[in-house]
Amino acid sequence: MVPSRRPTIGVFDSGVGGLTVLRALLDRIPDAGYLYFGDTARLPYGSKSAATVAHYAVGAVRYLQDRGAELLVIACNTATALALDEIKAAAGVEVIGVVEPGAEAAAAATRARKVVVIGTDATIRSHAYRRALEARQVAVREKACPLFVPLVEEGWVEHTVTEQVARIYLSEAFADDAGDFNADVLVLGCTHYPLIKPLLRRVAPAHVTIVDSAESTARAVELQLGRQLKIEPSPSSINDERRGVPDLKFFATDSAEKFRMMGTRFLGLPVEDVVHVDLKE
Amino acid sequence: MVPSRRPTIGVFDSGVGGLTVLRALLDRIPDAGYLYFGDTARLPYGSKSAATVAHYAVGAVRYLQDRGAELLVIACNTATALALDEIKAAAGVEVIGVVEPGAEAAAAATRARKVVVIGTDATIRSHAYRRALEARQVAVREKACPLFVPLVEEGWVEHTVTEQVARIYLSEAFADDAGDFNADVLVLGCTHYPLIKPLLRRVAPAHVTIVDSAESTARAVELQLGRQLKIEPSPSSINDERRGVPDLKFFATDSAEKFRMMGTRFLGLPVEDVVHVDLKE
Repeated sequence: MVPSRRPTIGVFDSGVGGLTVLRALLDRIPDAGYLYFGDTARLPYGSKSAATVAHYAVGAVRYLQDRGAELLVIACNTATALALDEIKAAAGVEVIGVVEPGAEAAAAATRARKVVVIGTDATIRSHAYRRALEARQVAVREKACPLFVPLVEEGWVEHTVTEQVARIYLSEAFADDAGDFNADVLVLGCTHYPLIKPLLRRVAPAHVTIVDSAESTARAVELQLGRQLKIEPSPSSINDERRGVPDLKFFATDSAEKFRMMGTRFLGLPVEDVVHVDLKE
Repeated sequence: MVPSRRPTIGVFDSGVGGLTVLRALLDRIPDAGYLYFGDTARLPYGSKSAATVAHYAVGAVRYLQDRGAELLVIACNTATALALDEIKAAAGVEVIGVVEPGAEAAAAATRARKVVVIGTDATIRSHAYRRALEARQVAVREKACPLFVPLVEEGWVEHTVTEQVARIYLSEAFADDAGDFNADVLVLGCTHYPLIKPLLRRVAPAHVTIVDSAESTARAVELQLGRQLKIEPSPSSINDERRGVPDLKFFATDSAEKFRMMGTRFLGLPVEDVVHVDLKE
């Protein structure tokens, strides 16, 4: 992919989890400038009302726009589920959330028209994936996996404990006791989960396709950029040898140092240029 | 214990964890009125600055005082560690936190003068227990156990996964590789941990005494009430057949229904009279 000019993409999340979406974006669209906003002082969004989440998210995306973001990615399942419409209404540029691209990819991948979605309590309770998939005539079983985020944050991404927990959660999700629910797609509906994707691949039934919302979202962003900048998206860009040095800037509402340490694990690249931001309530 | 009159005790926590402290208070001082405030909409406090935690906690304890609390218990390790002095300065009544009573009980129990403290990341990073124990000439090893809270909230209090996690954490905490650190006391420095106390008892070295900050705090409250109301504390009150029906009122800043459901597990009693409170930021 050779853009006619280097676009600036704003990526917003409540914390570091959205860095897995940034990672997927970098793989697909390396020749862009990225501004990443992690609202680490106010996470988790899951326990907050839709109005509060919308208020926080709108403040953050305005901050990104003020710094030049021409396209916004809401790399946070909770913010997407609870506040995407309000964010779109407040933003002056195109906004892409993680739920629709994940649902679209799952609907395209399932032959059984039956999908399992895993995520945090908040995402599952919002039923955002259920709505998006049922609108595509796909039956959905949702399963909250509240231990995955703390296990990933503990760094236990290839740990026997995590594998044991995954076996319990997935066997419940794919069990047949609620009828003949034979899903053939597993949607990773949380930005932390790509870090345990190899483990989930081993634990999930062999016939199941894993859909990673982070990757699906990066693809949607690439398509949108193509429309905005009249660029042909190129599937080969993932392995493009000509990729530029990514231009990355990070903003965090809690400690910059903490963001740097934790962030490096999620991004798989050094997280260096972190600025602490104090947004007014 | 037969109080000359029924005192009203305010108990404050960021969530439902402090209900284990309320439980210990009910066991020890059944003939009191209790007002419990759970700031569930703004948890966890661990990722917030000391100034923000103090601001939230002061708002909550003022709310409890306005409703008649004559003595305040800060049943939250983070709020105690980060903001006890500010809460005391703002409160017009006696304030008891969880750290000092826990440290006092541990110092009294250790013969080796060596203690292990486990808690959340935030509590361990605050080093509040370390300071309180070192002031009592006790050496401390601190160990953050970030998976225990989500495991307890998942309800896995007697689960093989939790036991496996506890073996990993405690073997690191009691290991000898940092010298000849042979602690003989384990302090439960988190209000969620009393729910896994039987499991921790099995996993911890046999010679180790477990000190539960919740119980130590209840004892400190009993002593303070005795001073305030001129009542003789009675160790036999725990099994007192004449105990009154507890008078319990609950206030939560997030959903009352969610508090009711989760709270019943932590209190070990039905949580019924829950009022939703919307505190201004």
